[in-house]
Amino acid sequence: MKIKLFVITFLSTIVLHSQSIQKQEDSDMIKAIHEHALTYGKSYDWLTHITKNIGARLTGSPELDEMVSYTKHEMEKLGLDSVWLEPVMAPKWTRGEKEEAYILSKNNKIEVDILALGGSIATPNTGIQAEVIEVNSLEEIAKLGKEKVSGKIVFFNRPMNPNLINTFNAYGEAADQRFAGPRVAAEYGAVGALVRSMTLRQDDVIHTGSTGYGDLLPEQYIPAATISTNTANRLSALLKEEEKVSFFFKQNCEIHDAVLTYNVIGEIRGKTHPNEILLVGGHLDSWDVGEGAHDDGAGIVQSMEVMEIFKSLNYTPNRTIRAVLFANEENGLMGGRTYAENVKKNSEYHLFAIESDSGGYVPRGFSFDAEVPEKTIEKLRSWLPLFAIYNLHVFDLNGYGADISPLKDGNKTLLGSLYPDSQRYFDIHHSEEDTLDKVNPRELQLGSAAMASLLYMIDKYGL
Amino acid sequence: MKIKLFVITFLSTIVLHSQSIQKQEDSDMIKAIHEHALTYGKSYDWLTHITKNIGARLTGSPELDEMVSYTKHEMEKLGLDSVWLEPVMAPKWTRGEKEEAYILSKNNKIEVDILALGGSIATPNTGIQAEVIEVNSLEEIAKLGKEKVSGKIVFFNRPMNPNLINTFNAYGEAADQRFAGPRVAAEYGAVGALVRSMTLRQDDVIHTGSTGYGDLLPEQYIPAATISTNTANRLSALLKEEEKVSFFFKQNCEIHDAVLTYNVIGEIRGKTHPNEILLVGGHLDSWDVGEGAHDDGAGIVQSMEVMEIFKSLNYTPNRTIRAVLFANEENGLMGGRTYAENVKKNSEYHLFAIESDSGGYVPRGFSFDAEVPEKTIEKLRSWLPLFAIYNLHVFDLNGYGADISPLKDGNKTLLGSLYPDSQRYFDIHHSEEDTLDKVNPRELQLGSAAMASLLYMIDKYGL
Repeated sequence: MKIKLFVITFLSTIVLHSQSIQKQEDSDMIKAIHEHALTYGKSYDWLTHITKNIGARLTGSPELDEMVSYTKHEMEKLGLDSVWLEPVMAPKWTRGEKEEAYILSKNNKIEVDILALGGSIATPNTGIQAEVIEVNSLEEIAKLGKEKVSGKIVFFNRPMNPNLINTFNAYGEAADQRFAGPRVAAEYGAVGALVRSMTLRQDDVIHTGSTGYGDLLPEQYIPAATISTNTANRLSALLKEEEKVSFFFKQNCEIHDAVLTYNVIGEIRGKTHPNEILLVGGHLDSWDVGEGAHDDGAGIVQSMEVMEIFKSLNYTPNRTIRAVLFANEENGLMGGRTYAENVKKNSEYHLFAIESDSGGYVPRGFSFDAEVPEKTIEKLRSWLPLFAIYNLHVFDLNGYGADISPLKDGNKTLLGSLYPDSQRYFDIHHSEEDTLDKVNPRELQLGSAAMASLLYMIDKYGL
Repeated sequence: MKIKLFVITFLSTIVLHSQSIQKQEDSDMIKAIHEHALTYGKSYDWLTHITKNIGARLTGSPELDEMVSYTKHEMEKLGLDSVWLEPVMAPKWTRGEKEEAYILSKNNKIEVDILALGGSIATPNTGIQAEVIEVNSLEEIAKLGKEKVSGKIVFFNRPMNPNLINTFNAYGEAADQRFAGPRVAAEYGAVGALVRSMTLRQDDVIHTGSTGYGDLLPEQYIPAATISTNTANRLSALLKEEEKVSFFFKQNCEIHDAVLTYNVIGEIRGKTHPNEILLVGGHLDSWDVGEGAHDDGAGIVQSMEVMEIFKSLNYTPNRTIRAVLFANEENGLMGGRTYAENVKKNSEYHLFAIESDSGGYVPRGFSFDAEVPEKTIEKLRSWLPLFAIYNLHVFDLNGYGADISPLKDGNKTLLGSLYPDSQRYFDIHHSEEDTLDKVNPRELQLGSAAMASLLYMIDKYGL
């Protein structure tokens, strides 16, 4: 077998320098994990049910209730030591009827598609119409000042940077326009906000997501919506051509009282260190468009598959391995917050937590908290040769999942994330395009296997 | 910037041991190559034209003629030093009218979809009907012997192995059933051959491809077709349940006389070593189903993009960089064979040849000829840190492209291949599913940039 001979040779130089000796049983176990996932994996069947029989499932929807029941029931079938629900009070927002919008230029009324941003208020029943002012950053609003912004619709149009290889970094750089842009625009007297969709594609897909009003008083809130990159480019071109361009939009979204929902939790108790918890998770909810296939149906079914793999391989862990399927990531993070509060309240100790919430694409490796101690990285690094065989080359320091972020407590718990290839994620993120046909079963299964392999190593050797 | 800090640290240990010192100008150039591809890349626009305005383009079709004209014209617009056509005589095969087929079990006539295999003969006008015998290998036919095989339709049903991470290795293990199965079945007196589609999905997609009759006399040829994995599983289940299952199929394909077609070639002449050629290529033709988007529209537009990158960055190479867009890969390899004959005739020297013909998916790195000398691998290996930044971690010894394989002449020319991630390729390979919507522009551009970066390094430092 000539396959990957070179990679193995190359990486083996590292092994020689490493303190830890990988044993044959580790490579055998990691092989068994991968073969089980690729041959008997259930994740794609689960995801088919979630996307096709349940569908989009924003907090407060009957679909999210169904998602809670379904995942609890499926986890119960795995024969874990315990499966339970953790109550979570979480915000509810609904879109209402389909939005309406058009651009008004000198000679034309151009109908366009928009999506209200999650958390936005509605427009008045008759909609709002105002002159558009384009900006590329939040700072630009301050420079323009109240005089120029007041009474306008502020249009945030800074594109994601195509030169960053990890597209999450490009998203991180651009997304302030969506989550903070409307608030800042409101502070300067704007009457509405429009945000360019967060994607690297030039197309008609509209990508929603959360916005927030921070400390503003409710009477200061302004309605905020997002438009596709094609619409954004068209609007921007008109603004360069014409002295004055106006925009009309009408949206019927509503902020409701908080609702009761649940984190779904299942665990296999550890035999030697049951009080040290290794967490794997994703989030149950999705935006109300698309099917929530990659975001985050993938993370849910991969977390469940990790548990299924350990049960099927009759692996009894030293530590407690727990799958946590979080509620309400998209518009509140109340699942993650509630979970962390209860961890504190119950004095539970989490040695490690990993989340899959970057899509079900082919895994490249893992990302960890940048503040991880050097000694811990060294230890993780010494395992790389075992993972490179499965094309898992990246042990990055580029952050961790949102739902597990409330567990951050110094370096008591190592926080991480599955790192799937990121090129395709923002094509479908928070949009009608996030559907099952964008998911490849093997890529999904390889993600489960990657996380199970890492959990196995941490369970065996600690951190 | 914390991003990939660890990977850089990890790989830098290799650099210290390496003889070659990477200079800042190399990392600057590789950065410029990637940024140009990701920001100004033309590959996706070219591929849009190829898939939507030209479409499927089997040898001998008017679409392939159009493809030759279009790519020649687009290469001419790049301002290369020369662009020309190289005549190629190549086999022509046509599918004719849509095939018809059904399974005949005890109580049912079940209509199924099939595709004739490329190169197969037709059935008689009235079709053929015979009892089905299932085998899992060519060897199994020999074991069964003439008595059991004679008069039957042999059904090759060995699935691709899901446990191999690189799916091309699984394809390599299974594809003998398609390219040699019908010939061996004919040798043992079978009247027809059916082959399970070469894919890891369980679905209704049918994947065609070449078969051949080797040294058989034309009167020994038998018609051969392929069925989807769902149909194969159904047929196999029936064969287990019932004593006798028959199959009927009718196909109208035709083997024609050879036709004249062309390799399309463009080059930038080297300034110090013009007689040392670095080749980048793909193939112009595709099967007659789908749009030939990944196979191999991607390789064509990536090869053109490599040239576009060098011209746009005003890079004057030391050696001659040549894009070769090969004719007739799918059913004859006559483009590659003719090119290699002319290379020999004209005493041209190729230092390096790389092909992109594994899909336009996100690149993982490169694969090289397993017989490459140790010294050469060491040199390539010393460049890995420059590539890992772009998530190119694999410098594998797992073979090279088919079209460049006739250039093999000991180790005179290093042969290689772009290595895109392989998980999705066999979902769409040689099927109606190989369409533009399966291609992500950034993944395509990253493949062009990967090859341009490698060519730049080889151009500068030799091998």
